[in-house]
Amino acid sequence: MRDVTLKQIAETLGISITTVSKALKNYPDVSPKTKKAVLDLARSLSYTPNSFAVNLRTKESRTIGLIIPEVVHHFFSNVINGIIDNAEKNGYLVIILQSNESLELEKKQVELLMNKRVDGIIMSLSNESNNDEHIKEIIRKDVPFVMFDKISKLIPCSKVIINDQKAAFNAVEHLIQKGCKKIAHIRGPVNPQNAIDRFLGYKKALEKNNIPFDSKLVYTCKNVTFEEGKEFAKQIINEHPDVDGVFVITDLVAVGVLAYFNEIQIKMPEQIKIIGFSNWFMSQVITPKLSTVDQPSFEMGVQSFALLLEEINAKKDSILFHPKTIELETSIIERDSTLKM
Amino acid sequence: MRDVTLKQIAETLGISITTVSKALKNYPDVSPKTKKAVLDLARSLSYTPNSFAVNLRTKESRTIGLIIPEVVHHFFSNVINGIIDNAEKNGYLVIILQSNESLELEKKQVELLMNKRVDGIIMSLSNESNNDEHIKEIIRKDVPFVMFDKISKLIPCSKVIINDQKAAFNAVEHLIQKGCKKIAHIRGPVNPQNAIDRFLGYKKALEKNNIPFDSKLVYTCKNVTFEEGKEFAKQIINEHPDVDGVFVITDLVAVGVLAYFNEIQIKMPEQIKIIGFSNWFMSQVITPKLSTVDQPSFEMGVQSFALLLEEINAKKDSILFHPKTIELETSIIERDSTLKM
Repeated sequence: MRDVTLKQIAETLGISITTVSKALKNYPDVSPKTKKAVLDLARSLSYTPNSFAVNLRTKESRTIGLIIPEVVHHFFSNVINGIIDNAEKNGYLVIILQSNESLELEKKQVELLMNKRVDGIIMSLSNESNNDEHIKEIIRKDVPFVMFDKISKLIPCSKVIINDQKAAFNAVEHLIQKGCKKIAHIRGPVNPQNAIDRFLGYKKALEKNNIPFDSKLVYTCKNVTFEEGKEFAKQIINEHPDVDGVFVITDLVAVGVLAYFNEIQIKMPEQIKIIGFSNWFMSQVITPKLSTVDQPSFEMGVQSFALLLEEINAKKDSILFHPKTIELETSIIERDSTLKM
Repeated sequence: MRDVTLKQIAETLGISITTVSKALKNYPDVSPKTKKAVLDLARSLSYTPNSFAVNLRTKESRTIGLIIPEVVHHFFSNVINGIIDNAEKNGYLVIILQSNESLELEKKQVELLMNKRVDGIIMSLSNESNNDEHIKEIIRKDVPFVMFDKISKLIPCSKVIINDQKAAFNAVEHLIQKGCKKIAHIRGPVNPQNAIDRFLGYKKALEKNNIPFDSKLVYTCKNVTFEEGKEFAKQIINEHPDVDGVFVITDLVAVGVLAYFNEIQIKMPEQIKIIGFSNWFMSQVITPKLSTVDQPSFEMGVQSFALLLEEINAKKDSILFHPKTIELETSIIERDSTLKM
């Protein structure tokens, strides 16, 4: 089925193609009467403008790209939600790509989006990724670019983050206030900045409270999974039976810890208190209900798109854009897993 | 920053633009030596082909649109995962839109994707949606189209589904085999075909086992939430204290039921057995672990894209395409919430 063209509308109404085009774009120099006639006809003919031709003319795709490590993930799916929501309000579409935590895939996806000439890219780095060439290429090519959550501090672009160090510090102080004296930490992989910062927050909170730091109490996730949580819980209780608190990199892993301790009937919060990070939905329905750090994930998505749009618009108007960093507040959600007994 | 054009590559190498273009597309009538020279130069100049111009020529965007009710949802995020995965393997990008279960938004999004000239659309209907004009318009405009999970039986398009009626029948028979004699059903909203089919499966299983159907034992969700699960659990136990089994439309709602019964210390599975639907991740970590129906969500995404691609390719080659329906198998996952005591 062929689409009705501007030409056909022009011929039917006996006006010029330019006038039809201007009428569809609501230009002020076309009379309201003509505009109405054009719009009515276009509508009744189910006319849709050829978006490729429009793109070529305006050099705008009104499409942005989003690269994230995982879609099936409570935090990231909430961020996606925020990005799509704000993009839609501003007439933008979002292409979503999933790096599966692989640097190689991430590189390919950046290239793909740039070939596609998206108006901008939003990204959270894979765990393998750091300050890499493919990211620098985005900046070199002057493509509007925002990083959120898993960022690289060395890239000069806009960022939406939380203060991971401070949030982790607060989580560990929460355990200390509840009476914990020997606190283990299940940390994220070696690369991502947020795993490093949460680890530093853990260390700092111990220091401030005169608890000696012991590197043997730190366990490092490779894949940040439920299964790793179970496995590390087993190691912790075997190697350090006197541990009375665990700060876990994210709720998914913390739920694995709870599952193992429930299995071998270790009482929480009586014997060990657990605090997670991210406030996944399931944390409020498991036993014991998990204390955690609430991350404003939806808001992170909204703000990431807002910053990207600011840069897209600045570029369009040839105004110099200064990248900025937005830091969002976190809070401790206190539930049963850290109750003071 | 301006992009390097084919013209610049041609001038630098002293060959024609046509030859450069053919070399980049790996045409057989360009010598390997010339190809290498062109590719090397293009690469060193960070040349990316202008995808809009390419689109205009080939009338292909190599982009598809996906409209789903929610992103933050275990089932849908797994389907998205499967679609993105298969699309990427075939060189397609996926634009994701979220209808938030609103018919109005869904209509707008269909229009947006058609204006954007995507190569095809994959969709799961919002709860408000049924056999509507906007869906028929996709078919009329000959845009390749696949529906999955929440479909309309009346639309002549490819579909990827499970047999909801059979799956629900099996779930309720499972409760009966475990000894349940008075089984309540928390069903989905009135419109969606899958909610209707699961309800019919429930009814059929009772019939077959000579348990009288009682419409008062059927509770209808409006928003399919955790909170509704809690609320209906309360109503069930107050209105029918002798109910000994509940079949719940989806795990999220079932987890609400467990939460309420845990709160008022009703023993599961001793007093009441619960079975959900969809096998959300959290179902295996709550107490008691929830029995449920496993839906192959990732595979649903993979198959949906495969059917769409088949139609896109048929259209490209002007071959008549016959829509087909793929039905995927489900299975009962038996856990603690339905253990025979």
